[in-house]
Parts: sequence; structure tokens; C-alpha cells
Amino acid sequence: MLRPWKTILAIDFNHQLSVYQQIADGIVAEIKKGRLKPGSPLPGSRILAEDIGVNRKTVVLAYEGLIAEGWLESADKRGTFVAAELPTLKKAASRTHSSFEFNETEIAPIPAKTNSGFIVFNDGLPDVRLAPLDELARAYKRIFQQKARWRMLGYGHEQGEERLRTALTGMLSSRRGMNTGEADICITRGSQMALFLTAQTLIRPGDSVAMECPGYLPAWQTFVHAGAYMINIGVDDKGLMVEELEQVCRTKKLKAVYVTPHHQFPTTVSMKMERRLKLMELSARYGFAVIEDDYDHEFHFDAKSLLPLASDERAANVIYISSLSKLVAPAVRIGYVTGPPAFIASLARLRALVDRQGDPIMEQAIAELMEQGAINRHAKRAARFYRERREAMSEYLHTHLDKKISFKKPEGGLAYWVKINRDINTEELAAKLLKKGVSIIPTERFSFNGKPLNALRLGYASLTPAELEEGIRLLATVLKKS
Amino acid sequence: MLRPWKTILAIDFNHQLSVYQQIADGIVAEIKKGRLKPGSPLPGSRILAEDIGVNRKTVVLAYEGLIAEGWLESADKRGTFVAAELPTLKKAASRTHSSFEFNETEIAPIPAKTNSGFIVFNDGLPDVRLAPLDELARAYKRIFQQKARWRMLGYGHEQGEERLRTALTGMLSSRRGMNTGEADICITRGSQMALFLTAQTLIRPGDSVAMECPGYLPAWQTFVHAGAYMINIGVDDKGLMVEELEQVCRTKKLKAVYVTPHHQFPTTVSMKMERRLKLMELSARYGFAVIEDDYDHEFHFDAKSLLPLASDERAANVIYISSLSKLVAPAVRIGYVTGPPAFIASLARLRALVDRQGDPIMEQAIAELMEQGAINRHAKRAARFYRERREAMSEYLHTHLDKKISFKKPEGGLAYWVKINRDINTEELAAKLLKKGVSIIPTERFSFNGKPLNALRLGYASLTPAELEEGIRLLATVLKKS
Repeated sequence: MLRPWKTILAIDFNHQLSVYQQIADGIVAEIKKGRLKPGSPLPGSRILAEDIGVNRKTVVLAYEGLIAEGWLESADKRGTFVAAELPTLKKAASRTHSSFEFNETEIAPIPAKTNSGFIVFNDGLPDVRLAPLDELARAYKRIFQQKARWRMLGYGHEQGEERLRTALTGMLSSRRGMNTGEADICITRGSQMALFLTAQTLIRPGDSVAMECPGYLPAWQTFVHAGAYMINIGVDDKGLMVEELEQVCRTKKLKAVYVTPHHQFPTTVSMKMERRLKLMELSARYGFAVIEDDYDHEFHFDAKSLLPLASDERAANVIYISSLSKLVAPAVRIGYVTGPPAFIASLARLRALVDRQGDPIMEQAIAELMEQGAINRHAKRAARFYRERREAMSEYLHTHLDKKISFKKPEGGLAYWVKINRDINTEELAAKLLKKGVSIIPTERFSFNGKPLNALRLGYASLTPAELEEGIRLLATVLKKS
Repeated sequence: MLRPWKTILAIDFNHQLSVYQQIADGIVAEIKKGRLKPGSPLPGSRILAEDIGVNRKTVVLAYEGLIAEGWLESADKRGTFVAAELPTLKKAASRTHSSFEFNETEIAPIPAKTNSGFIVFNDGLPDVRLAPLDELARAYKRIFQQKARWRMLGYGHEQGEERLRTALTGMLSSRRGMNTGEADICITRGSQMALFLTAQTLIRPGDSVAMECPGYLPAWQTFVHAGAYMINIGVDDKGLMVEELEQVCRTKKLKAVYVTPHHQFPTTVSMKMERRLKLMELSARYGFAVIEDDYDHEFHFDAKSLLPLASDERAANVIYISSLSKLVAPAVRIGYVTGPPAFIASLARLRALVDRQGDPIMEQAIAELMEQGAINRHAKRAARFYRERREAMSEYLHTHLDKKISFKKPEGGLAYWVKINRDINTEELAAKLLKKGVSIIPTERFSFNGKPLNALRLGYASLTPAELEEGIRLLATVLKKS
């Protein structure tokens, strides 16, 4: 019997489904509708191919697939027929009908992309418009041209390219007073992977971890994901409240303490020396790891900048995490972690399980930029912009919000911590501001329990003075109304 | 009292320790030796700086650091002195004295780098000498030049660049009969990260996972790391022994089954259709996930290549993992995973915890190569070389090892599975061969329990016919002797 295959199997060559799939689906549909009965013959592949205007091999592939699935049968010479017994399997047609269970992962809400033209107060990111993109492009070009370029295409070292580790240890030694060997550093995909590997290597479910509160939510969630029991320690204008920490140590075995001493997240406070010494003393006495997240070391504007905890000769328990993402650009995912050799060795083995190794091409390109001093030149240049924007931000906050807020100009870092002199729900504030084309990050999340902080962390570095003034002006108008 | 500071603090400007650190260490050493007594004065920073020939600020930094650490005291106007009470902290001087505990991670032994000139039979890697490096370099160049290049430098999507997801779904649809939407795919750093995220998202400690044995050790270790109880299922010349799997299902609740149906690792066998149907049926009946690792789909040389399990309309429970690393180069870490939308969504949230996002620059460069068809052209070109090497390999195995071994020319994939007609310890064999400049991978590890398999997995694709013959010849001589 002749069938209007051209209409039954109207092939759409632009369809997301392959032609193969369209033919197979069409035939199965015919069978299900009962229009093709068990045992009834199908046209030869050549005839059907010509009929519906496709390549014959595609038809053969479709037939083979359907035979495999049990919809069709081939009786060698005699041709292809609808199977006498159709597949009995209850069909779970679409993947949305999966029947296995899995774990739900909780993460920090990732800020929704805002339309261009929006004024975005991020949590302290660099201005990508200043990124040394041409230098980076040239570095990539040279890496691809180097004689040994084939060698970098095989598998590499799970701790990262030695060339970059050498550049990093040199920088850590000369600029941060840290004595780190190439073997004691593991290059990661941004500081988030350094945090993840550290948490997974340190923590056994039920271990206690203390951290600054308010603090960095992604760190909190990474520890929770590793099974940690979290203990919040307060922060004041001297940084982590170590007396509070000592109280905890007396009653509880801590596995680790997470701190951001250089510029506390979110309050931007620098941890004072006496606090640092006390923290080191407690770590030595009670045997817990100190995880020092030094996420934007380069941008410190006021005179005295303290060296990292990790530079202290008593830093035996310090695991030091830092990154180039804030320096070059967020998308350039190069972070690193240093610590006790045995710890780094175990962390590197875990890293091999997570993603085997890093990106040798990017790592070599970044190493070249560091060797040439291009990274430092960029940091100096960017810092000039950021210093100016920091001044402008302070001025605009005074001009537009003076009575309503209180703040201290941050010694460093790329954000202001602005306290609002009344109770406020920043989730609602953010929603109202979005309508005006301004994006802020609600701060309730920084307390880990939704408790309002009546403050805003306003990243200023990626906005021009003009954008800053407009953003603050709009913030002021919305604050007045609400 | 005048001290020979120039000799006491002999600064080495090429030393890995910063000048700052050298000064501080030198002074502390003097104090410890008792040559600098508590309360004794130090020279003014300017004087010391001139004396030892360094920048004054460096001396100030060193003094400040030592004051912070409690070694020195400053009596404002009167200058700097050795502290009256020296630091009492028991000093854990070096980081090797850390006092916190951490988890040891077990991983697959990573093959030691062999000297160039060695003949390396890897486990089935592409020949990096064929990699489309110039095309890749040009793609990077264009990506850096595009108008919107700044936008890619901010934070990106945790599932990867949409442009690459679109290119991948198109390829999966037209070449693998898979109907996958951009939202149901997560780009990862190579298939290892896809495996890691899948295991972490699927498994709760104690869950049972079945997999092919012999099989792919990194997968086995990734599941074990996630807390899985592993069940080994045998493999024969039709692939996974599904009857054995069914026996297990009757008595045990399985969370997942890991398979490499296209070219089983390590035996290279293609899973036959009836086995595939049975596996799908069991998955639907018993509600376990099927993790399909399709690690080298492109390289299939014999006529009929079956479509992935994931292309089946009943693939509701299939999680599909694949990669471009085998196609472009191992160092190009682009893998991907598709599966039920809700599963991929949870997996993507975990990915944000692991490393936040991928590399937008590389992902766009690879997307461009796919859009231009450069990846397919490369695959075709490489396949021609591999097909020739596959023939050559077969010939050399016959010529040099005929009586000693048995093998089937693999239908596809980049390795041979060669059975040796007697008991043999391949760890020892590998050691002997290394002395002759030939590297092989011991196969005991593929049985997960060290049980000998009396076989070798010999990757042939990254060796020229001449290299293959020399390698096989040396293998034969060593096999004769041992």
C-alpha cells in the first residue's frame, strides 16, 4: 500500500532534531497511531529516501535504530517490516521522567545578569574595562608560537604549570614576605576552587569550623557542603573578635577558622596586629588550621599594609588562598593555595579527581605576563583609577546620604561598607533600586541566617565617578521614599 | 655599640627570600644567639639601610614586622629596641610543623613524565602532534578582537558559555541522534570534572554503584571518593554482562551503573544492542541512573557504529558524559554532561561551588572552531592517521608477538586490548620495558583489586607506524626474556 511518506515524514532540515531522529520518530508515531500495523512492510530505504528527499544512509540509520529498539524487523532479502511484537517496555519517553534520586546542592544566589546601562554595585570586583586584554592576547599568541608548544597539549601537572608556580612564589616572596616553594603551591581555577579543595581536604562531616560573621557566603556554603558544623564569630573595627574565638576554643574542638584579615568581607576592616598575633597563638595552642583568604591583596591605599598571616614564621597552621581574578579579570580563573607540604600534596591529589589539571595554555600566558611585569604595571595603573573612584565614592556618599548613613573610607579593597542609620530590608531595597536601573547585593545573606545588617557592601571599582554619583543619587532617592 | 651589620645581614638580592625577610630573619637570629640582648637599641632605619645597601623602606618594613611579632619595640621618638620580653610563643618555625589534621585523598597513579624519545603506549590518547593548534591560536586571536570582548571578562554562566552549549547540542543532535537543549547541558573542565560532579550529585555515602570490571580506575576512585559502595560487573565480547547486573538488582538497590558502551575501557569492546536494551530495561524497572561515558565517540572505524544510549527515547535515566579532550588535545579541558533537567540544574549549582564557572575565552574559541567545522575537519584528518596506525599496529602485533598473544582489531577507539597467553605481572613488565625506553600502563589497576588481567591496553594513536613497530619489537624481546 502506498503511503504519503512525504507528508507523514515532513522533514525539517533546520529542526534541532536530526533528520535521522525525525524519520525514526515519524515511523514510531505511525505505528503508535495504528496506521502501521505489526508485520506490515516498509518501503526500501532507497525509495523512501527519494520520496522524502533525504540521503539514503540516513534512512538506513533510522531503520537500524528502530530495528535495534524493536519497532521494526528486517527479514534479510525480503526487506523491513513493523515488528510482529512491538516493544513492551513502558516508555519513559522524555528525560523529565527519570526515576533515580540525587542530592540537591545549595549555593549562593548568583546575581542575575543586568541589562547593559544598569549601574551595578557588585561586591567588589575590578573594572573589566581596564583589564590588560591586549597584553593577554599577545601572551596567548606567543605561547601558541613557542617551539615547545606541542608539549603543553599533553597532560600536565595537577598542581599547575611550574612556570606559573615559580612566578607566583617569586611574587609572594618579594611582595608579601612569604617563603613558599614551588612544591607547596597548588594553582586552582580561581579562589573558589582553592576554597572547595581546602574544605574537602580538611573537613570530615561533623567537624567544627569558625568564621567571621558577617562574612563571605560562598565560603560558608563550601564548608557546609563539606559537612562542617559552622560557628559564627563576630567582627568589629579591629577585625575578627579573637576573645570570642578563644571562648569557643575552650569548649569546642575547632578544625579550622576562616578569615579575611587583609580586607574583611564584607566590612572591609583590616585585622589589627594584636588580633592576628592572638589568632596565631590560639591556632598553635588548640591545633586548628587558619584559612586566610587574601582575595584582593594588591589594592590597599592607606599607608601601612600588614603582611599576610602566612608570612609569619609561626604560620605553621596557615592555609593561604589568593587569586589573580581580582587583579586581571573575574573570567581569568587563576587562584592558588599554599600551606603545609603534606596538606598541599593531599589537596593536589583531590584536585586530580576534580578536574585532572588546569589549563596549561592560560597558565603559561599569565606566567609570561607576570615575568614581564605586565601584571604589576596593570595593578599600578588600575590602582590609580580605583583610588580616584574611592575618593569620589566617599564624596558622593557625603553629598547625597550624609545624615542617613555612616561609613569609614576603606583602607583598601574595592568596596565600601555603608551602615544605614535605621532598620532596613535590603532585599526590598534592591528590588526597588532595580526598577531605577541600579543593582545592589542584599546584605542579609552575609549574616548566614537572614538577619538584617542594616548596611550595604557597595563595590565602587568597576564604576566611573559619573556612574558612581548617579548610582548614589538614585540610592538616596529610593532610601528617602522607603 | 657598632655592629658589622653588612656582614651580619649579608643581603642576597637573588635569594628566593625577599630582602625584607632576610633582614628580619637576620635580626631574629642575632637575638636568638644572644648577641642582641633584650632592651638593646637598633640602628635607625636610614643608617642601617645605607649600611647594608638596601632601600630604607625595606628596613622600616622589617622593623615593623618584627615589632608586630614582638621581637622589637619602638619607643616613639627614641628609636627601636629589642623587646624587653621576647616572644613567648613556642615557635612552630616552618610549615612542616603544622598541628592540624586533614584527609588523605587516594587517586589513580598519574603516569610519570617520560623523557622525550621514549615510546609511550598511553591508555588511548590522541596524537598532540596532530592537534589543530594553529586553528586554535587563530580562534583565540579572533575572540580577543571581537567587539564584545570585555563582556566575557566578567562572571559567566556556571553551565558554560551558551555559544558553546549551542554548538555542542547541534553536534549531539546531528551526529549522535541526541535531542538535548542548551539548558540540559553543563560544560565542564574535561570529562573528569563531569564524572566528579555526577558522582557528588548522585551519591550519598553508602549508596551502591555498579560498574564494568575491568574498567576505568579514575571513575572507580571518583565514586569511592563520593562514598559509594562499588559492585563490579563482568565484561565479555558483547560488553557489560547484563545478566550479572540483573542478579545484583534482584538483591540490591543500585543508585547508578557506570558504563563505557561505545568502546569499553579497557577492553575496547562495543556493547551490543541486546545488552543495551536490557540495560535500559533494568534501569527503568529498578530506577537506577545509567552513567554513559562516551569518551572517544569520534574515532570509530568499522561500519556500523551504534548511537549512544542517551539517544534512545527511553533514556530517561541516562546521564551522558563526553569530552573534546580526546578530539582536540588532553590539555584542552572541555568536557560536558547532559541528563535529566533537574539533575543537571543541581549539578550546575555544585559546579558553582567547585570553581564558579569555566573559561569563557577558551569556550568561545572552541565554539568558533565547531561552528567553522574546523573540529570536524580535524577529526576526519586525525581519523585517517589513526586508521593507518590501527592497521600497522595489527600487523606488527602479528609479526612480532603472534604466538604469544591474542587480540581483536578494535572496531574503534585509540587503543588495542592485547591478551597475553600466559600469566604475567604487568607492573614488572612495565619496569623492564622502561629500561628499554618503552612506557606501558600496568593493567592490574583496571581490575580495582590488583588482580592480574594478563593483558595490555596499548594506545596506538599517538605513535607513528615506525614508533609502533619499534615499540612492539621491544615489547616482544622483553616478553621473550621474562
